[in-house]
Amino acid sequence: MADLERRIAQGRGDEPADVVLRGGRVFDLITGDLIDGDVAICGDTVVGIGAPYEGCDVIDVSGLILVPGFIDTHLHIESSLVTPFEFDRCVGPRGVTTAICDPHEIANVMGVDGIRYFQAASECTLMDIRVQLSSCVPSTDMETSGAEIDAEALRRVMGHPSAIGLAEVMNYPGVIHRAPDIMAKLKLFEGGHVDGHCPQLSGRDLNAYCAAGIRTEHEATTLKEAREKLQRGMRVLIREGSVSKDMHALQPLLTDVTAPYMCLCTDDRNPLDIADDGHLDYMIRELIALGCSPLAVYRAASLSGAEAFGLRDRGLIAPGRRADIVALGSLEACDAQLVLCAGRVANAAAFAARKEVPPIGRHSVRAPKVGPEDFRHSGNCSNTDVIGILDGKILTAHLHYDLAATGGDKRPDISRDLVRIAVVERHGRNGNIATGFVHGFNLQRGAIASTVCHDHHNIACVGVDYADMAVAVNRLGEIEGGFVVVEGGRVLAELALPVAGLMSLEPFEMVRDNLIALRSAAKSLGVTLKEPFLQLAFLALPVIPALKITDRGLVDVTRFEILN
Amino acid sequence: MADLERRIAQGRGDEPADVVLRGGRVFDLITGDLIDGDVAICGDTVVGIGAPYEGCDVIDVSGLILVPGFIDTHLHIESSLVTPFEFDRCVGPRGVTTAICDPHEIANVMGVDGIRYFQAASECTLMDIRVQLSSCVPSTDMETSGAEIDAEALRRVMGHPSAIGLAEVMNYPGVIHRAPDIMAKLKLFEGGHVDGHCPQLSGRDLNAYCAAGIRTEHEATTLKEAREKLQRGMRVLIREGSVSKDMHALQPLLTDVTAPYMCLCTDDRNPLDIADDGHLDYMIRELIALGCSPLAVYRAASLSGAEAFGLRDRGLIAPGRRADIVALGSLEACDAQLVLCAGRVANAAAFAARKEVPPIGRHSVRAPKVGPEDFRHSGNCSNTDVIGILDGKILTAHLHYDLAATGGDKRPDISRDLVRIAVVERHGRNGNIATGFVHGFNLQRGAIASTVCHDHHNIACVGVDYADMAVAVNRLGEIEGGFVVVEGGRVLAELALPVAGLMSLEPFEMVRDNLIALRSAAKSLGVTLKEPFLQLAFLALPVIPALKITDRGLVDVTRFEILN
Repeated sequence: MADLERRIAQGRGDEPADVVLRGGRVFDLITGDLIDGDVAICGDTVVGIGAPYEGCDVIDVSGLILVPGFIDTHLHIESSLVTPFEFDRCVGPRGVTTAICDPHEIANVMGVDGIRYFQAASECTLMDIRVQLSSCVPSTDMETSGAEIDAEALRRVMGHPSAIGLAEVMNYPGVIHRAPDIMAKLKLFEGGHVDGHCPQLSGRDLNAYCAAGIRTEHEATTLKEAREKLQRGMRVLIREGSVSKDMHALQPLLTDVTAPYMCLCTDDRNPLDIADDGHLDYMIRELIALGCSPLAVYRAASLSGAEAFGLRDRGLIAPGRRADIVALGSLEACDAQLVLCAGRVANAAAFAARKEVPPIGRHSVRAPKVGPEDFRHSGNCSNTDVIGILDGKILTAHLHYDLAATGGDKRPDISRDLVRIAVVERHGRNGNIATGFVHGFNLQRGAIASTVCHDHHNIACVGVDYADMAVAVNRLGEIEGGFVVVEGGRVLAELALPVAGLMSLEPFEMVRDNLIALRSAAKSLGVTLKEPFLQLAFLALPVIPALKITDRGLVDVTRFEILN
Repeated sequence: MADLERRIAQGRGDEPADVVLRGGRVFDLITGDLIDGDVAICGDTVVGIGAPYEGCDVIDVSGLILVPGFIDTHLHIESSLVTPFEFDRCVGPRGVTTAICDPHEIANVMGVDGIRYFQAASECTLMDIRVQLSSCVPSTDMETSGAEIDAEALRRVMGHPSAIGLAEVMNYPGVIHRAPDIMAKLKLFEGGHVDGHCPQLSGRDLNAYCAAGIRTEHEATTLKEAREKLQRGMRVLIREGSVSKDMHALQPLLTDVTAPYMCLCTDDRNPLDIADDGHLDYMIRELIALGCSPLAVYRAASLSGAEAFGLRDRGLIAPGRRADIVALGSLEACDAQLVLCAGRVANAAAFAARKEVPPIGRHSVRAPKVGPEDFRHSGNCSNTDVIGILDGKILTAHLHYDLAATGGDKRPDISRDLVRIAVVERHGRNGNIATGFVHGFNLQRGAIASTVCHDHHNIACVGVDYADMAVAVNRLGEIEGGFVVVEGGRVLAELALPVAGLMSLEPFEMVRDNLIALRSAAKSLGVTLKEPFLQLAFLALPVIPALKITDRGLVDVTRFEILN
């Protein structure tokens, strides 16, 4: 923060402010007032509002409304498919000035080195990236990840200034049943901030989870669930990702009364959605259009997030706070005309001037070379567990179909939309391959595959043709991970993600273009899902109910056990 | 906090809770819902609500409403005229479970030993006394106190667990003009909590004060002032003391929209008022009666205070929070039937079982022996500065009267209610005596005097008869400080306050009875003020506008200088 005496002197007008924003009105998130007058900034800090100021640098914001920079209270930057630097450049100009991320995607591949990469990046970005410390790497003991992080490893990365606390504690069964490894992590952060993740937890189980000291949560998908979590003292983060879309369901709960205790987050959002609809700016527009008051929405987008995570230095445009400021044409449009991150204008020159940290995690895809026969699925009982996709949700249904084996193999049945899904371990640890069925893709031919596969980031592949599945999986090894669409032995489209098999080395605009080609290629195979790759990525995450698949087999998440 | 595994096990109902409150409803301060079901408590922590629980100890709260314990966000416990232990016993059963105090009264007499006394006491009381570190001892350099506390001295007492941050920074001119001693203290607490005190500060001066990182403030006396402070990002603490009564003026600002950012405090409240009207319970009743919503009021009384001061462990009845609970017959009546402090029932047995810290500060009144001639007031200009009392405010008016000297002395003139006021240094440092005039007491004869005299706690004396004034001042030396009313050379009533000249050694009930006798004695001399002693105590505080008097003379607070 800028020097104390300078802040006071500039706030009092005894010397010119470093920067003055002139001609706008500040939307005060405490009273709801629109406040006329200059905004004076000293270094990274607002030092005056509502009064005339002289400035060394005066920026004209005539006719604009100034709101505090937006805080994404929970996300995995890796899900943007670009590096933290490209994420910064992509989302910062939309008004996001703080991103509270959990780097557990890269941590599942690279261990604490992945966390350290984000910590180092956070020192260079224009926006303030706060790096939560990943609590569940791997998410459970029912999967093979590239690394394990225990309490002792977390202790080694706790001291970085970007840290807030322990990232989403997804292993909620481990919490409520007092698993020793989870207890060790919770004790390490006791008294500090611990973020939650407990989909559909309720009643005494939810009480137990909260009694552990977990205070923020983003997995509520219904009004009832969100209300119960609020009543238990949790801050509810409304999530609108590329797959998990809870905003419309939870919107009625966001009122002037509850807004101080509700926040916004994206969790997982890709650059195509960001380009098409927006990021937090999209949520703000949509929530206002749905009938929420602008005061409630802008509070949730900044002040309430700051308070929920103990970021006392931001969330308001007020003297003594960080100069994270978004200048808008109107509150309803949420059309950022100018964004300041800690007093610096987020423009092309500023992005270009950043020091960058070299990416890590090259050549991380070490899967076995596979053949068509690896995708067979045996079984002598015709009653078959099937993962049922719920479009736009990361929750799945646990379905049952009657399916007989032919020659020792239960084949896909496109007439009933029963498609093969496989997970191939790719960290070079054991070469596990698990197979099963999924319903909901409407895939008619070929295969699609991905190394973005939460949270272990093995290879997930969906197909109706085993040979195409083998081509797809093997191709991912060649391009260091990414997405691929295959038909008739030929790659129709692909996106390489050589940074830990999760992030591109390219600018976000190029990634966005590639995603358009991939969507189109998947659609050409009959896929009806809007986000087939992101939907696929969550079918392997065994901390979201109800039925998932990892490299070790199908997982009944409600019972937290592998089906055999 | 109770052990993690036990909290989770009891929250889940895997083992009986230590204590269960059964039959009540929890008033949820997030949603405003009334929640049926048991409240489960493990040690000092709530671990479950809204569900049935087994308990080792079950307390019947049938028909009652449960709210979180109240937080007095700013007070000087010394102003209750009793020790912290008696304060605990007096106010705890009314529902106050956290008191954020600034021990600057005793610190002005005893230095950091006074702070240490409160820190030690905080380890023994049932309620949680949080001891802020006094920033302004003395309050200015225009007075003689018993001790000075600089940044280095503060550093030595920072580590105690009762500390939150720096107590009210009253020397607001020192802040905005960057006085080096104030800067050193602010830097010591930068990034932590710094509490404010800046009556009537506005515009760029207020911006400068906030830019210094000061976040909470309790001196707003008008709607306009409070609204501007809210807009600058300050949490506004609504104060209702025995003299400073701002609740009725600020009440319209306390709505469901602003309540998360407003708190309640008493600042200075004596045991007579507590007995007559109540403490925070009185404020709650009155605010609801004035039309505030119960949700807004109970938020301000607990949750918002916890958030304003970063006390993350309290403010809600929810799993994982401190079991500070008040059981009420009704929200409107705020009639505490049962109070739990960190899981312990605040009853006579619990108060009796406390370990007590022996009081300090005996024999602290070391004033010179005075005679009638010491109260003469010379001056050859008939235009005379007069302190104008504003009943129920600690602000004063700066009045001017025409008064000629007779025999080198400007005598009191009861026909115009112009009464002698004197301040006598009593710490044994220089024996200063300053004299002046005050308007508003309507004193007709005799004198009253006190060692409770903010914040330096010299002797303040008001009288129309110099001989009676001398008797009063000398008597205070004999009884180790306190209050005294004298007429015709005879003591009509008195209360000894031998703990630093500020606090009684007696139970609060006895102090209250003495105060009734003192009020009555003062009234018999013609005094028309409801609280003559408290009103007197603030006439010597040179950080509250407009005209005050210290042992060094009359102080023009608006110009922050001594009048000669």
